Amino acid sequence: MTTLSPTARSTVQRGKHRAVTERSRLYEILDAGLICHLAVEVDGAPVVLPTAYGRHGNTLYLHGSTGARSLRELIAGKPVCVAVTLVDGVVYSRSVFHHSMNYRSAVVHGTAELAEDVELGLRAIVDHVSPGSWDYARNPNKKEIAKTAVLAIDLTEASVKVREGGPGEEPEDLAADAVWAGVLPLHTTWGSPISDDATSHDVPAHVSERGR
Amino acid sequence: MTTLSPTARSTVQRGKHRAVTERSRLYEILDAGLICHLAVEVDGAPVVLPTAYGRHGNTLYLHGSTGARSLRELIAGKPVCVAVTLVDGVVYSRSVFHHSMNYRSAVVHGTAELAEDVELGLRAIVDHVSPGSWDYARNPNKKEIAKTAVLAIDLTEASVKVREGGPGEEPEDLAADAVWAGVLPLHTTWGSPISDDATSHDVPAHVSERGR
Repeated sequence: MTTLSPTARSTVQRGKHRAVTERSRLYEILDAGLICHLAVEVDGAPVVLPTAYGRHGNTLYLHGSTGARSLRELIAGKPVCVAVTLVDGVVYSRSVFHHSMNYRSAVVHGTAELAEDVELGLRAIVDHVSPGSWDYARNPNKKEIAKTAVLAIDLTEASVKVREGGPGEEPEDLAADAVWAGVLPLHTTWGSPISDDATSHDVPAHVSERGR
Repeated sequence: MTTLSPTARSTVQRGKHRAVTERSRLYEILDAGLICHLAVEVDGAPVVLPTAYGRHGNTLYLHGSTGARSLRELIAGKPVCVAVTLVDGVVYSRSVFHHSMNYRSAVVHGTAELAEDVELGLRAIVDHVSPGSWDYARNPNKKEIAKTAVLAIDLTEASVKVREGGPGEEPEDLAADAVWAGVLPLHTTWGSPISDDATSHDVPAHVSERGR
């Protein structure tokens, strides 16, 4: 399935011209983000949790502790919604009303299920948040695996919206040419690695060359 | 009220040592963010929406269109949860299990009410997303105000979590000194303004000097 197949709730209602229907764009946005925001109902009210994630094929993985009131207890088996949003800039139009943002947004609707293959899910999360770390750092032992709950969310029901380019304007504002208009881009960049005081090792390439 | 007063749902359950209880830190995080993620229940399932926001005093403002299936229809009067998350870096520990992120996170629980003073709310949003624009660009006319719904959320029930600093480690991983560990900072920065082709004006200071 190379296109997104929106259901009623994954059909973009507002700003339809910003809707994107290629599944590859969903994956691009999920792979480019770092954290997601997960919404779930708890005790009759919605709760939103920022959390790390990873993707493997058409599945999104989240993890948490197996402790009380944990991700597992609160979320497993429930309907959830997950958003990954990348803000690319602020759009300054000639009118306050048409000010906007450039962004890439993915929203996934699904049910969070306990992952059968915990290690596969954990590896997807680690490969996403810190690519290279799984092959470099000490891997989880049995006790650590037992402490970790991994949730899997199918990516079939999803919507993607993208805004890019310059400001939209009213014809009279364009004609008046009263003020500047344009875009102020927003960039997210990696800084220089800060080594832990106690390490005797050089910064490895998977860290020093990240994003370069 | 200078401290946050957590209820059961705004009391940090996991990672209590990362909980912050000064109200000033809540405001700092909200003021430093650019977008929020809003969770609300729609047709029995949670939905999460990335959206712009602004803060005025102890109130958070969101806006949307007044159209069908809009922010107003879907959200006004309902319990909502709003998160603003700033990711400051990836924490590479000596074990995959202790990999983490540095972040500042604010989560607000409340009810979204239609704002009585639409212009005050709109101005708070504009001052947040594009400071300086309200005094510079054409202000909303009556028709534009009528098209806009502004929602207000009281900030009283909120929680703040902050993680900063280097990796946590198991004593045996520290003793082994087998691999590098440290932090890779993540920075969000404004780029150079891109002027709209049709403007005859220079980039104004509130844009060119943003974040400098």
